[in-house]
Amino acid sequence: MTAVRYELIKTCKQTGARLGRVHTPHGSFETPVFMPVGTLATVKTMSPEELTDIGAGIILSNTYHLWLRPGEDIIEEAGGLHKFMNWDGSILTDSGGFQVFSLSDLRKIEEEGVHFRNHISGEKLFLSPEKAMHIQNSLGSDIMMAFDECPPYPAEHKYMKNSVERTSRWAERCLEAHKRPQDQGLFGIVQGGEYEDLRRQSAKDLTSLDFPGYAIGGLSVGEPKDVMNRVLEFTTPLLPNEKPRYLMGVGSPDSLIDGAIRGVDMFDCVLPTRIARNGTLMTSQGRLVVRNAKYARDFSPIDPNCDCYTCKNYTRAYVRHLIKTDETFGLRLTSYHNLYFLVKLMEQVRQAIREDRLGDFREEFFEQYGFNKPNAKNF
Amino acid sequence: MTAVRYELIKTCKQTGARLGRVHTPHGSFETPVFMPVGTLATVKTMSPEELTDIGAGIILSNTYHLWLRPGEDIIEEAGGLHKFMNWDGSILTDSGGFQVFSLSDLRKIEEEGVHFRNHISGEKLFLSPEKAMHIQNSLGSDIMMAFDECPPYPAEHKYMKNSVERTSRWAERCLEAHKRPQDQGLFGIVQGGEYEDLRRQSAKDLTSLDFPGYAIGGLSVGEPKDVMNRVLEFTTPLLPNEKPRYLMGVGSPDSLIDGAIRGVDMFDCVLPTRIARNGTLMTSQGRLVVRNAKYARDFSPIDPNCDCYTCKNYTRAYVRHLIKTDETFGLRLTSYHNLYFLVKLMEQVRQAIREDRLGDFREEFFEQYGFNKPNAKNF
Ligand SMILES: [Zn+2]
Ligand SMILES: [Zn+2]
Repeated sequence: MTAVRYELIKTCKQTGARLGRVHTPHGSFETPVFMPVGTLATVKTMSPEELTDIGAGIILSNTYHLWLRPGEDIIEEAGGLHKFMNWDGSILTDSGGFQVFSLSDLRKIEEEGVHFRNHISGEKLFLSPEKAMHIQNSLGSDIMMAFDECPPYPAEHKYMKNSVERTSRWAERCLEAHKRPQDQGLFGIVQGGEYEDLRRQSAKDLTSLDFPGYAIGGLSVGEPKDVMNRVLEFTTPLLPNEKPRYLMGVGSPDSLIDGAIRGVDMFDCVLPTRIARNGTLMTSQGRLVVRNAKYARDFSPIDPNCDCYTCKNYTRAYVRHLIKTDETFGLRLTSYHNLYFLVKLMEQVRQAIREDRLGDFREEFFEQYGFNKPNAKNF
Repeated sequence: MTAVRYELIKTCKQTGARLGRVHTPHGSFETPVFMPVGTLATVKTMSPEELTDIGAGIILSNTYHLWLRPGEDIIEEAGGLHKFMNWDGSILTDSGGFQVFSLSDLRKIEEEGVHFRNHISGEKLFLSPEKAMHIQNSLGSDIMMAFDECPPYPAEHKYMKNSVERTSRWAERCLEAHKRPQDQGLFGIVQGGEYEDLRRQSAKDLTSLDFPGYAIGGLSVGEPKDVMNRVLEFTTPLLPNEKPRYLMGVGSPDSLIDGAIRGVDMFDCVLPTRIARNGTLMTSQGRLVVRNAKYARDFSPIDPNCDCYTCKNYTRAYVRHLIKTDETFGLRLTSYHNLYFLVKLMEQVRQAIREDRLGDFREEFFEQYGFNKPNAKNF
């Protein structure tokens, strides 16, 4: 019996998108799903109860950050990450690989692992497949990620080929080092950039290892949207139907819908909470920058079509006032709304799959949100 | 019928402290009471629902700050402060006088009012009794404060006498300028520093104007604790029994108890939320600085004797981690606990009055909290 299991419920006749359910040791959730990010064992500004209120069944937390602060040993002593942060739903942890490659300078990649510097203190650190598994085993997340190299975009074919092959070797080492397969499901990560042959090779290597789920890595790293869609189109068919597929680092509404249409089941991104802290909101009519002066006397809700806590109880004028005066409660209200918006968007996506009309839903949503306008912002 | 009415329930036989109830257009609350401060139409980090959860029946908001941001006209257009911030309990607003005297440089006091500079933009401003009433009428608070001068400590007798006389003249102008006496109760403020004759004169002037309640101003401005207690001892007997008495700017546990013993009914202070944001907590065993390294692996609650949301669900180790990493949720958890602590302390004080044992309660509490130790910190 594996710790994590995917159940395919239905495929959308109009688009091929998948409706499914992922079962983990901390409950089940329907897919396609958006996972709020709780980098440091907290989804910024939110309580666990509020995450439950908005309908989040799974959150993501970052191995690299927790390793540095407070340290995985403290979290293990606390009884694991769920208990430490008082969250009883599912948790996915990344491997730390992405942060090693995006946050730190002076990294040196060897076969054994990666030497780099702590992005806060400058201290020398080393991360390897074995170390990444050890940390994630200590955290006790429901879904762990294999330690991979995440090359920049663009990268040359030759570099990428070497990298993909090393990531495959690291994936094998991860499987061997994983000490709690009965409690925690380990996902492999398919790399290969924009190269179809390398994605094919990576998928073949990883699926031969029979992970309970697969991530598609190396996207949303600066490439144009049509490149991401094209890569998804030739990559997801390489993955087994009976396993969940996770597209890392994607959280803009258009990309969530387009990813689901290309067969992706799981998404995560800091976008909704990060832009919320700056006073930018996702609404059914497109994005809304609540700091703007025109909202100073606007006593309507952030999104008249939203029934979240923020929209039911507060006005644009009040939220604007809080954001302009750097009041914490303002960040709570905007974060709550944005997370609610994406979680509900995925509910709508699942409903559209049920009704075989995700293509139609996409058209309606894009039109309303403004994605069809020239120069539309990409969220 | 006045907007605000005080009901004396019982006097403690051991100490003379008063158990009472204040009735306002937005509900009633028992006294002695601690009022959380919501400077900018939000009690920092807290939602209105959380304030209700902790048992807060009345909060304070600051006229000066709301006048500058977002402006009282916007709050009036929103339907008043209660509606603007989604708080249906009672609200007390100060007059702005304290901020004019504590925050701004270059102030010039004239009979008409005070010229000073905006502490954010440097812009020239003018505040007068009439203006302070106008703003508070726009805000629609349940309890308004008269516009007074709050002289520094220490101040010479001659200066203080002039100031007290002007404050009395201003109090009369406030009463005349107050446009909504049926909706909002206006409290007078007794000044006079440490001078008994001036407190007597101020109290006589103000009680002759028959306000529905009286504040004792000019304390907690840097004077030693025994001076504050002495001033309270000769001032509260000058105030009518059938009106509530409010000691402004006091929030340390010892001063709350000592104030209640001297006949004070209402208190407010930013202390619990301000120290919370720095990771300092009030507990039944004294103060606890959760940032300290010794709590890194301490998986017990902040206060084992507390049953608040924070203490029921989180450990010192987790709260420390959040505070050390500047996570907003940490500020929520510490603010929640500190406000809960003071609100519950006042519940205990009221219960002790009921049982005629507030003096005994004081001894027990001071011993446990550490106030009897040499060099005890003053909170
Ligand atoms: Zn909303
Ligand atoms: Zn507590």
